[in-house]
Amino acid sequence: MGINSVAVVADLGESFGNYTIGDDGALLTLVTSSNIACGFHAGDPRIMDRTVADCVERGIELGAHPGYPDLVGFGRRLIEATEDEIRTDVLYQLGALDAFARVHGGTISHVAPHGRMGSIAQTDAKHARAITDAIAAYNTDYIVICQRGLLAEESRKRGLEVGYVFLADRGYGDDGMPVPRSHEGGLIYDPELIGERSAQVVREGTVRSVSGNVVPLGHDADVLLLHGDHPTVLANGTALRAALDAADIRVAGLREVLAEKAQVALAAG
Amino acid sequence: MGINSVAVVADLGESFGNYTIGDDGALLTLVTSSNIACGFHAGDPRIMDRTVADCVERGIELGAHPGYPDLVGFGRRLIEATEDEIRTDVLYQLGALDAFARVHGGTISHVAPHGRMGSIAQTDAKHARAITDAIAAYNTDYIVICQRGLLAEESRKRGLEVGYVFLADRGYGDDGMPVPRSHEGGLIYDPELIGERSAQVVREGTVRSVSGNVVPLGHDADVLLLHGDHPTVLANGTALRAALDAADIRVAGLREVLAEKAQVALAAG
Amino acid sequence: MGINSVAVVADLGESFGNYTIGDDGALLTLVTSSNIACGFHAGDPRIMDRTVADCVERGIELGAHPGYPDLVGFGRRLIEATEDEIRTDVLYQLGALDAFARVHGGTISHVAPHGRMGSIAQTDAKHARAITDAIAAYNTDYIVICQRGLLAEESRKRGLEVGYVFLADRGYGDDGMPVPRSHEGGLIYDPELIGERSAQVVREGTVRSVSGNVVPLGHDADVLLLHGDHPTVLANGTALRAALDAADIRVAGLREVLAEKAQVALAAG
Amino acid sequence: MGINSVAVVADLGESFGNYTIGDDGALLTLVTSSNIACGFHAGDPRIMDRTVADCVERGIELGAHPGYPDLVGFGRRLIEATEDEIRTDVLYQLGALDAFARVHGGTISHVAPHGRMGSIAQTDAKHARAITDAIAAYNTDYIVICQRGLLAEESRKRGLEVGYVFLADRGYGDDGMPVPRSHEGGLIYDPELIGERSAQVVREGTVRSVSGNVVPLGHDADVLLLHGDHPTVLANGTALRAALDAADIRVAGLREVLAEKAQVALAAG
Repeated sequence: MGINSVAVVADLGESFGNYTIGDDGALLTLVTSSNIACGFHAGDPRIMDRTVADCVERGIELGAHPGYPDLVGFGRRLIEATEDEIRTDVLYQLGALDAFARVHGGTISHVAPHGRMGSIAQTDAKHARAITDAIAAYNTDYIVICQRGLLAEESRKRGLEVGYVFLADRGYGDDGMPVPRSHEGGLIYDPELIGERSAQVVREGTVRSVSGNVVPLGHDADVLLLHGDHPTVLANGTALRAALDAADIRVAGLREVLAEKAQVALAAG
Repeated sequence: MGINSVAVVADLGESFGNYTIGDDGALLTLVTSSNIACGFHAGDPRIMDRTVADCVERGIELGAHPGYPDLVGFGRRLIEATEDEIRTDVLYQLGALDAFARVHGGTISHVAPHGRMGSIAQTDAKHARAITDAIAAYNTDYIVICQRGLLAEESRKRGLEVGYVFLADRGYGDDGMPVPRSHEGGLIYDPELIGERSAQVVREGTVRSVSGNVVPLGHDADVLLLHGDHPTVLANGTALRAALDAADIRVAGLREVLAEKAQVALAAG
Repeated sequence: MGINSVAVVADLGESFGNYTIGDDGALLTLVTSSNIACGFHAGDPRIMDRTVADCVERGIELGAHPGYPDLVGFGRRLIEATEDEIRTDVLYQLGALDAFARVHGGTISHVAPHGRMGSIAQTDAKHARAITDAIAAYNTDYIVICQRGLLAEESRKRGLEVGYVFLADRGYGDDGMPVPRSHEGGLIYDPELIGERSAQVVREGTVRSVSGNVVPLGHDADVLLLHGDHPTVLANGTALRAALDAADIRVAGLREVLAEKAQVALAAG
Repeated sequence: MGINSVAVVADLGESFGNYTIGDDGALLTLVTSSNIACGFHAGDPRIMDRTVADCVERGIELGAHPGYPDLVGFGRRLIEATEDEIRTDVLYQLGALDAFARVHGGTISHVAPHGRMGSIAQTDAKHARAITDAIAAYNTDYIVICQRGLLAEESRKRGLEVGYVFLADRGYGDDGMPVPRSHEGGLIYDPELIGERSAQVVREGTVRSVSGNVVPLGHDADVLLLHGDHPTVLANGTALRAALDAADIRVAGLREVLAEKAQVALAAG
């Protein structure tokens, strides 16, 4: 009994035109699942096309990573948009990415709102409603990747499955939520430690906080996120995969992980 | 015998943010079919959402109107894009619009490339291939609205049905192709004449050219296009509908018109 | 004794590409001064070129109207930009507009931050500092058009002259500040009333609030703003000019108005 | 007698938002002069601000590098713009960059049109006129960096000084013009060779072409261009500077180089 699988995801396809961000080629060897930028905060139609094709070819789960229409700010700045603006911006991006999935014979599996849109949606009801309205209207099969909070709540209200994420390379507070990057310990630089923490959070549901306490995450760790802009992302990913192997935790796509959990829950029922 | 139906289409949803172009409310009462901007040369997610909703509510056929990524130039300037850039830009726009069709319970029926992308595709093989590659990869049920030329040829090569368009408010040359707007007689300002010409081209397949000759159009007139930025577009549309009625030409959606033609052709065997 | 002059300003050059907003031709006949969009929230290089040329030809004072880089939101949505982002965005726009002033033989006279950037700067120190840092670094001769608040304070700290604006077509609260447009009485639809209020605020420094009280504006009314998107802007402007004439208030450019006030103050010494 | 000085320039400030292109820090140690992107094909207000500040601090000449409004295409795709569109787009960019020069106490010294706008201007009269109209209207002191062709001709017609550029890391044809990058020998990968060729073209005015002939460049080599996206740009620049030193060629800013040439010509008079 107990869960013995987890997905590994990274943000991909964040390049734009002549500009490159991240080492997608390397990340593709480490992940089970992708959050693909949709052309608003990053990505363009060529990048999307190639990223989707690469993922489909390698059997990596496709995920949409919609953000604010703010390329110069990389989607990291709050825009005080209306609920209708957020909903239709997300819907537009879901459709655009889906076009590439369709022509490459793939299926979008999940949605992970990007940057500030994603973080604000955990505490702002307007964002949480707008994003989940767009997703539910488009495809109720989509899983929503998020942390606990309003986005998770509104997802469930609309019948959308939730995949809880653990930010593998980030420090957490005593409340079981990640502390800001700028906070001391906010970014973890030791790949081994990233691996250990990941195995622990999957197995035990706990994390050692920046103040040194072992605290519950407060939700499952269905999927582990690697940040592509972390200076040692490849070492992090390699150590993470090794630690999961050592802990006998199976790495699989998020949909499979959630299905397995549902079965375990049913059996435990 | 003979064809007795035609579709009427207009470009819709070309507003953007705080900017309004065209009287969509009025056009919606005159047309059977829509060419809806997809956010690159015009349109934004809110406009697309509302335009699709309005069309679905009124039973107006949905069409995609993709263009170059050039809002400031309204898609009217040639961009020397690569074949891959054109293909992926079109694909992105098809998917984005389709998202709105999907959530409003509608179906995209056709594609009409906008502006300079559309006109160059009639003579430039790279554009014709790129556009039809995108459409055929996305949905082979889509009809391509165009004039005779390479876009029509490449559409048929990929198994895409073609809907031939007659520009109802524009002057034509002796070659059966529209003359530039700036040309004398390039724009027709008499609504009655627009109606008469439309009925004639559907019935007889001919048009009186700017030099006064009655010439064959050289292809069917499956769909009549009204330009929303014509100064008297409402009068044009009203006169056009009246003239079609008077000539006993049935006005229907493009898919229905083409289906009827196919049956007539079959019967004529 | 007593001030007997005031400037009249409107936002101009807010069209973009194929999109038109406002009736600039008519507004040019009613104003002494212009707030010209700089290509971020509205305007493009052609519009800026033509608008500046028109203003120079008619002797209308040139003003810069910088905003957030948010065309689809028309600069009306808060963007949580950093101080450096706001400062450099404003600086960029000041330089861009100045290029057109320079080639048309004109001089930029003032700056009026647009939309949400302008309104937030009255209460948010970061915005007030960033905007005035940009202006003061670029040209200390520029006048800053604003209401009382932090933007005015930071302007004076940097040696920038302030021109206080009264929104002629808007309702005011008992605190002498405009109420939101959506508020009952937020928008005034009676041109005569707009004229009367304008004369009163210049002469007496008071305004009848939406709750019916005559309250002090709390600052001078150096310049009266007409909104170009008000449904009856021409009637408003005509009535306003007539009311000022009737009250024997001279209409002049803002720089002249402020100079006259300075002289009066000196004489009153 | 004989010219013994040359400028060294590189394109700088081509990053955008979260995206980095080029190693500006290293290039700043190798050049006398900069071509700074102005926010249309690359660059943003923060990048421009920092790049100008860095150049001013190090005494590097400031140059404007305006391009098409096509970030996703990096200004490398022809846009069939009107003469007025090109002129006003260039003017806008000149003003925007100048704002940063002004606040950092620097002076823009030259203009080098970027990418496709720059290359087409050598043979297309519309582009050559539009670009030089903008420059001459804004500041007749600006030097225009170009190769021989229409842009040089139109510059001189308007009284603008021309600085002829030699692309140090590119192969040349027998006509003394660079061959396309994709052409065999189009890109030179040997830093020593780049240095030797540079010294030779300054001293002798000749270059060994891709077909092996020593041919005249057909114009002076006033300024040597290093491409920041060349894989070995640092080695190239270091070898180039060493080769110039060895050949006793003084490296100076372009304005100084042209002034010296003018004096030599006068003396030779």
